[in-house]
Amino acid sequence: MTYCIGILLDEGLVFLSDSRTNAGMDQINTFRKMTFWDVPADRVLVLLTAGNLAIGQGIVNVLKAKISPDKSAPHLLNVTSLFDAATLVGEAVREVHHRDAESLKEFGVEFNPTLILGGQIAGESPRLFTIYSAGNFIEATRDTPYFQIGEAKYGKPILDRVIRSGVGLDEAAKCALISMDSTIRSNLSVGLPLDLLYYRKDALQVQQHVSIDQHNLYFEMIRSRWGEQLRRVFQELPNPQW
Amino acid sequence: MTYCIGILLDEGLVFLSDSRTNAGMDQINTFRKMTFWDVPADRVLVLLTAGNLAIGQGIVNVLKAKISPDKSAPHLLNVTSLFDAATLVGEAVREVHHRDAESLKEFGVEFNPTLILGGQIAGESPRLFTIYSAGNFIEATRDTPYFQIGEAKYGKPILDRVIRSGVGLDEAAKCALISMDSTIRSNLSVGLPLDLLYYRKDALQVQQHVSIDQHNLYFEMIRSRWGEQLRRVFQELPNPQW
Repeated sequence: MTYCIGILLDEGLVFLSDSRTNAGMDQINTFRKMTFWDVPADRVLVLLTAGNLAIGQGIVNVLKAKISPDKSAPHLLNVTSLFDAATLVGEAVREVHHRDAESLKEFGVEFNPTLILGGQIAGESPRLFTIYSAGNFIEATRDTPYFQIGEAKYGKPILDRVIRSGVGLDEAAKCALISMDSTIRSNLSVGLPLDLLYYRKDALQVQQHVSIDQHNLYFEMIRSRWGEQLRRVFQELPNPQW
Repeated sequence: MTYCIGILLDEGLVFLSDSRTNAGMDQINTFRKMTFWDVPADRVLVLLTAGNLAIGQGIVNVLKAKISPDKSAPHLLNVTSLFDAATLVGEAVREVHHRDAESLKEFGVEFNPTLILGGQIAGESPRLFTIYSAGNFIEATRDTPYFQIGEAKYGKPILDRVIRSGVGLDEAAKCALISMDSTIRSNLSVGLPLDLLYYRKDALQVQQHVSIDQHNLYFEMIRSRWGEQLRRVFQELPNPQW
């Protein structure tokens, strides 16, 4: 499995993904789930993938293969809206489905990719989409400013309590890291290193892309202090007296 | 769906279950998922069920139908160990599977019950089991002192951080309620009222069985203060500076 988060804020976008893939218990590997395209002054696109790794890589490769300065056909670097970019991702999902789903089914492998696409194209505001296995997709709004894919449940409560559109980029990144920490603690199939990417509205280039491994001091601080503080708050709440 | 927790402590046992069942989005009902048998000075058995409601009720009814003072066949009130009681629950699961699984499959309904059985029978220590759809089961130990069934993921992180065998009954109940609150906030298919049951080791009768609805002051306090404190702790952690 994997766990990825995309958050749409008034200030911009935050993306976080883990890098663990597993086929059963003994074939555990590290593969990045985050791909981004950064054309300064024109566009930033960030794609996160969850589900079967071969399918995810297939989708990314279909998208990359279409990018060419010669072609007039739409691709990720010439479309004029994030909506059109999400449509391209949906089409790539369907192309890989058409190619692989039948064969995978014969081996009992489900065609189950889900993706998050976010970013900004010059002329638009930042936007965030999640794309389903059928190639259809939905867009984040101020009411629902974040998407998760993969092992989403362990880390959802803290996002539900903290994330609002008005939250700052740094704070949203902190919340995403806590959400990731809760997930890693409760689920073996999600693991370090992490990819964290910040995008500040209208910058039209990636602000910050950090790879977080077990030696990252900030993440280590989050891990230990969050757990400690949680236990302290827990102790401070009165016990029930029925 | 549903969400139930059973916790085995040095001091005894704590059980918590919700009561929401849903068939799709528009057929939402309230059914208790907790059944208990309390024979003072002899035994306390508590059974929690998750999965398809008809299957869960079927299993409970098979178990109840077998209880009779006349019969020499083993039933929940005459077996001499919790292990034997778990075996009976597993057999009841298999009986319902034999009766219903084929017909359910024709309608695309999965046979998916999971159960938690805990309690104490005179002569033994308190024990806690979880029983799977195949009728097999495992027992909680000091290393893994709790089981969850149903929508378990949202509420798992706080249990992982707090629950140890040495935790007191009240504290464990508080933790279970916070875990339930996180689940209810993030998942529509889990809802009030809750059944909370305390069992103190060697009491051989139920200590406390509380039904918690939206007017319960303690749960209301937990809901508001836990969220508040969590946000405060979150604010106090420094933001990342990369």
